[in-house]
Amino acid sequence: MQDNLLGSLVDALRCLPGVGPKSAQRMALHLLERDREGGRNLSRVMAEAMERIGRCTRCRDLTERELCSICSDTRRDDGLLCIVESPVDVLAIEQATAFRGRYFVLLGRLSPLDGIGPEELGLDMLEERLDTEPPQELIVATNPTVEGEATAYYLHKMAEARGISVSRIAHGVPLGGELEYIDQTTLAHAFGSRQSFTPGR
Amino acid sequence: MQDNLLGSLVDALRCLPGVGPKSAQRMALHLLERDREGGRNLSRVMAEAMERIGRCTRCRDLTERELCSICSDTRRDDGLLCIVESPVDVLAIEQATAFRGRYFVLLGRLSPLDGIGPEELGLDMLEERLDTEPPQELIVATNPTVEGEATAYYLHKMAEARGISVSRIAHGVPLGGELEYIDQTTLAHAFGSRQSFTPGR
Repeated sequence: MQDNLLGSLVDALRCLPGVGPKSAQRMALHLLERDREGGRNLSRVMAEAMERIGRCTRCRDLTERELCSICSDTRRDDGLLCIVESPVDVLAIEQATAFRGRYFVLLGRLSPLDGIGPEELGLDMLEERLDTEPPQELIVATNPTVEGEATAYYLHKMAEARGISVSRIAHGVPLGGELEYIDQTTLAHAFGSRQSFTPGR
Repeated sequence: MQDNLLGSLVDALRCLPGVGPKSAQRMALHLLERDREGGRNLSRVMAEAMERIGRCTRCRDLTERELCSICSDTRRDDGLLCIVESPVDVLAIEQATAFRGRYFVLLGRLSPLDGIGPEELGLDMLEERLDTEPPQELIVATNPTVEGEATAYYLHKMAEARGISVSRIAHGVPLGGELEYIDQTTLAHAFGSRQSFTPGR
């Protein structure tokens, strides 16, 4: 078991997020003992994905084509443009909502101290898109962190200057959450952002 | 993000034990966004491991060679033979102890109902080894489950018939464990297997 090839496999598996030495060992042995076909398939698909998957030229999402499937889908609504930080956010929104508009993926958030400015986020590309094909509504879905808020603010300015209406997804107490377990910042925000209540609306 | 190649990668990652749809997604995106080199390397090593790693012809451990590194290490003690259920157990013992003897990997445990008899565990191979090169001591390190105990009993009989002394690793309260949190079976076993106590030994 101290052999080089098995050791290399265990080491290589550790590039996966959340996989430590014990899990990597367990994964390697599982594949070798019970699922070689799965391992071969994973190896094949991964090699292909690493080489071929790039960025959509329009929305910067991950895709192996020039345009991702969302950008090339003619049935989607060009009037709604949702701005997210990362490809995972696109997946999350697609899985959870019935949103049928377009996306733009920033691949990060404004963070001048880390050298991430508007250009790194492709905001020049977005600006051009807002100029040439302005949507009716820009939906800002950056994460509610300090940098995410700064990014949202920047996006708001950008859209406002072009007369595009901007919305931001709601932040507050999660459904099913209980007030006593919610962190103070979220609760304070939820309290401050209270909305008029019309039962049965 | 609904593209086929990315979807295939997420699906393929799910062959890893303990990886559900969300983790697979996170792994795929992590590799694509931050560690393509790691992904390429993993793909390469995995392909090689799946093809080349087989069984050691002497101890049945996993290796890409005819003999594993432990069996081919001439400095190890032929007089001690440790019987374990799986390659993970070899790794665990090697990492935790200073054991310098040999191993034999059963790759399972006796379970007649599942069709796992002595032959499936390579016990004929082990029997031949005990006949031709008998060790001084056979250390039985099967897991303390019903099947593991049955296997231990079988191994004991086999060694006894050849006049080889047999030992079994100790089972009881884990170090650092507290009696009140130990399960009843373990505690009862530990109580029954109490040993004479000589402080400072």
